[in-house]
Amino acid sequence: MSTDLVFEDATSLCARLQSRDLSAVEVLDAHLAQIERVNPTVNAVCTLDADRAMETARSLDSGPVSGPLHGLPVGIKDLSPTKGIRTTYGSPFFENWVPDFDALPVERLKNAGAVVIGKTNTPEFGAGSQTFNPIFGPTLNAYDATKTCGGSSGGSAVALACGLVPIATGSDLGGSLRNPAAWSNVVGIRCSVGRVPSYPNALGFNSLSVQGPMGRTVDDVALQLSVLAGPDPRVPGCLADPGSIFEVNLGRSFEGVRVAWSADLGGYPVDSTVTEVLEKQRSVFANLGCVVEEACPDLSDADEIFQAFRAYKFASDYRKLLEEDESKVKETVKWNVREGLKLSAMDLADAEVKRTKLHVRVAEFFEKYDFLLCPVTSVNPFSIEQEYVTEINGRELENYIQWMATCYAITVTGHPAISVPAGFTGDGLPVGLQIVGGYRQELAVLQVAKAFEEATQFGRTRPAVAVEGG
Amino acid sequence: MSTDLVFEDATSLCARLQSRDLSAVEVLDAHLAQIERVNPTVNAVCTLDADRAMETARSLDSGPVSGPLHGLPVGIKDLSPTKGIRTTYGSPFFENWVPDFDALPVERLKNAGAVVIGKTNTPEFGAGSQTFNPIFGPTLNAYDATKTCGGSSGGSAVALACGLVPIATGSDLGGSLRNPAAWSNVVGIRCSVGRVPSYPNALGFNSLSVQGPMGRTVDDVALQLSVLAGPDPRVPGCLADPGSIFEVNLGRSFEGVRVAWSADLGGYPVDSTVTEVLEKQRSVFANLGCVVEEACPDLSDADEIFQAFRAYKFASDYRKLLEEDESKVKETVKWNVREGLKLSAMDLADAEVKRTKLHVRVAEFFEKYDFLLCPVTSVNPFSIEQEYVTEINGRELENYIQWMATCYAITVTGHPAISVPAGFTGDGLPVGLQIVGGYRQELAVLQVAKAFEEATQFGRTRPAVAVEGG
Repeated sequence: MSTDLVFEDATSLCARLQSRDLSAVEVLDAHLAQIERVNPTVNAVCTLDADRAMETARSLDSGPVSGPLHGLPVGIKDLSPTKGIRTTYGSPFFENWVPDFDALPVERLKNAGAVVIGKTNTPEFGAGSQTFNPIFGPTLNAYDATKTCGGSSGGSAVALACGLVPIATGSDLGGSLRNPAAWSNVVGIRCSVGRVPSYPNALGFNSLSVQGPMGRTVDDVALQLSVLAGPDPRVPGCLADPGSIFEVNLGRSFEGVRVAWSADLGGYPVDSTVTEVLEKQRSVFANLGCVVEEACPDLSDADEIFQAFRAYKFASDYRKLLEEDESKVKETVKWNVREGLKLSAMDLADAEVKRTKLHVRVAEFFEKYDFLLCPVTSVNPFSIEQEYVTEINGRELENYIQWMATCYAITVTGHPAISVPAGFTGDGLPVGLQIVGGYRQELAVLQVAKAFEEATQFGRTRPAVAVEGG
Repeated sequence: MSTDLVFEDATSLCARLQSRDLSAVEVLDAHLAQIERVNPTVNAVCTLDADRAMETARSLDSGPVSGPLHGLPVGIKDLSPTKGIRTTYGSPFFENWVPDFDALPVERLKNAGAVVIGKTNTPEFGAGSQTFNPIFGPTLNAYDATKTCGGSSGGSAVALACGLVPIATGSDLGGSLRNPAAWSNVVGIRCSVGRVPSYPNALGFNSLSVQGPMGRTVDDVALQLSVLAGPDPRVPGCLADPGSIFEVNLGRSFEGVRVAWSADLGGYPVDSTVTEVLEKQRSVFANLGCVVEEACPDLSDADEIFQAFRAYKFASDYRKLLEEDESKVKETVKWNVREGLKLSAMDLADAEVKRTKLHVRVAEFFEKYDFLLCPVTSVNPFSIEQEYVTEINGRELENYIQWMATCYAITVTGHPAISVPAGFTGDGLPVGLQIVGGYRQELAVLQVAKAFEEATQFGRTRPAVAVEGG
């Protein structure tokens, strides 16, 4: 069996689907076959919706071209409600829930002609950058099945890496679009809050958690973003630009562009093997014409800010479930809820005051630099048996989320950040480069990521598990 | 002495200043004379900066045209820091504070060529819609000196009504741009959060408090807004549109526009004399071609939401001052701080969840209606001796802010709202009509307010105190 079709870029598939060079049924069939062949090994697609997807594909083939994603299969992260398709959040509480509505991003993808093929696996309630839960078990790293794929959009990232889907959705509070992208050798972008409106969303004024696109190439991510982005009046704080601002050729010059390089974001522990892989890529930016300097914004208080607002969100979202039945909730979620219940309003106010100051410092930094380059993750993929990282370079960490600091410190800045494939460790594990751009400058972030991708081509190295039967 | 110049529209003054038909010094002189003559009676301008203003005016007259507000005097609300000009917040703590920086709106006004003439009076820390404080005493209603002018932008509103300034700044948490505008027969618009970026701002992610323009006409307010609006990267959540979107002719047709009319926003107590005055204006909208219906969005929980976030803000901003010296803080502020200190993070989460639901209900309402018309204030100006309203139509109120509900319930929706002059009570006290528009539709709000203003001309009735010596 050839894997050409399932590793074809989404942009290319879309063009061929729209010209009727390919039918939606053909494309779907190829992906269903790949899922059947590879998913049992990696466990990325947790709920398959093959029959309904086939019905949709047939109907698309017999009608007019329905939108930019006409006939393109998509995997939806299992934290997003999907109408008629089981949605579990990786939690026993929702083990058998079948929503009667689509979350807004799903609705937009379907309206653009995408075919929902199924759901992708996540940690319980998306908590922690390790994708396992009591309903579906763990999702394995596409490049080494003894390792984690990260998370929380782990199922989406691995499904992309293995050609199970051409595009997939994710979400990101403290790194969930970036960390699994890095560890699956694919692309995930955390946009500015409000770029991709989230609905329904209990805490609508929350400004840390975002929905977003994942793909195997930067162009594929931009394509999906053009569908997901754009305002919705029900969503407070959504940005006004239509999604069409991302329907552009991402090519441009980077001559003289000012780039800051930081190996550790000002002092976070980062495993030396990550640093080694990334250092080799620094010259790529100089070769693009950029002026590269060692620099980092002052991210003081990022930990405290993130942990306060994360605990606020976890306690708000899950405290009632804990009251109902604590035994159905994993220990790390319970800890996060309890941390939130301890907080006073003034603890949050202190965090907000600190976040406001940090925002200003970062804004000033981006007056001087166009981009900040740094690691996505502080470590490389670890054992699938381990829930989270407890120490880095011999330094013990304080809690289960601290190893995610290279991602969540960027979350706190509110700036857009992409994870792009940036090479492999000696053991063949993929490493991601995080590119952070100016306030709401997603387009610029996509442009520079595309230039890096074109120069390096790391994303073209497929995992053996996905191609070996080809 | 003629008061023609001091009652000339700001748009007209600006045109004449730019064509050099008038000099900045002439315009300033006229306003300084009016301040000297009238301010002792109303106490609206609390700090005059005549010498520096004259120096600026002279320098503008001898240089090129500096911007759209070239040579136009402006009064700055005393809650906004002004470089080199005493800024008290109406509090003994800041009695002698002279900032070494301008707040962002002040900086933008100065960059546009405006001449800061001085500061306008506010309640202590802007708390409560009654303008009095221990530093400067009360500001009196321009139409009846035994009555309050409202607040907290009371000094700005009265200064405008009396021709002391052609434009002035204000701010609005629970009605402070709208209530004093209504009671001074001038115009104030509360924009969407982020439309006028606020900097510095300790709680930068706060989404209730806004800065904004005040003027005697809708065009004058739009002119100032074109200078105040536009993004600043230091301000999280600021809207991306440049201020120039407000540099347009506000005339347009309202044929077939759907307008909702609500006398009490779904059941808030409103004094019958307010209702009587406003009812007479309902036909104006029908005459403009609008389809007018009785309707109101479901504003359930607005009180609880507003009071939680207000208390959060007061406690965050002032708890340290209370610890320092409680005796220097008025009772109502102390109450608000204590309410904030009682709150847990989960109280805020509950308020945010309710606010999210309210936002969605209001968004759905504005799918059906283009505008919501309602009272600005629940009562007419009350005795200057009274701190706040304790009962309306015989119904006792729960706390010192509840009488402001017709304003703060709109604050909570996040929608733009303007106060326009809408007639007078039998006692000659001005009454304001509140026009609320769709999410971020400031321009539409200004347009309909302008049509109402043109049809009614209430704003052209000057207070006797300001013209009698003419």
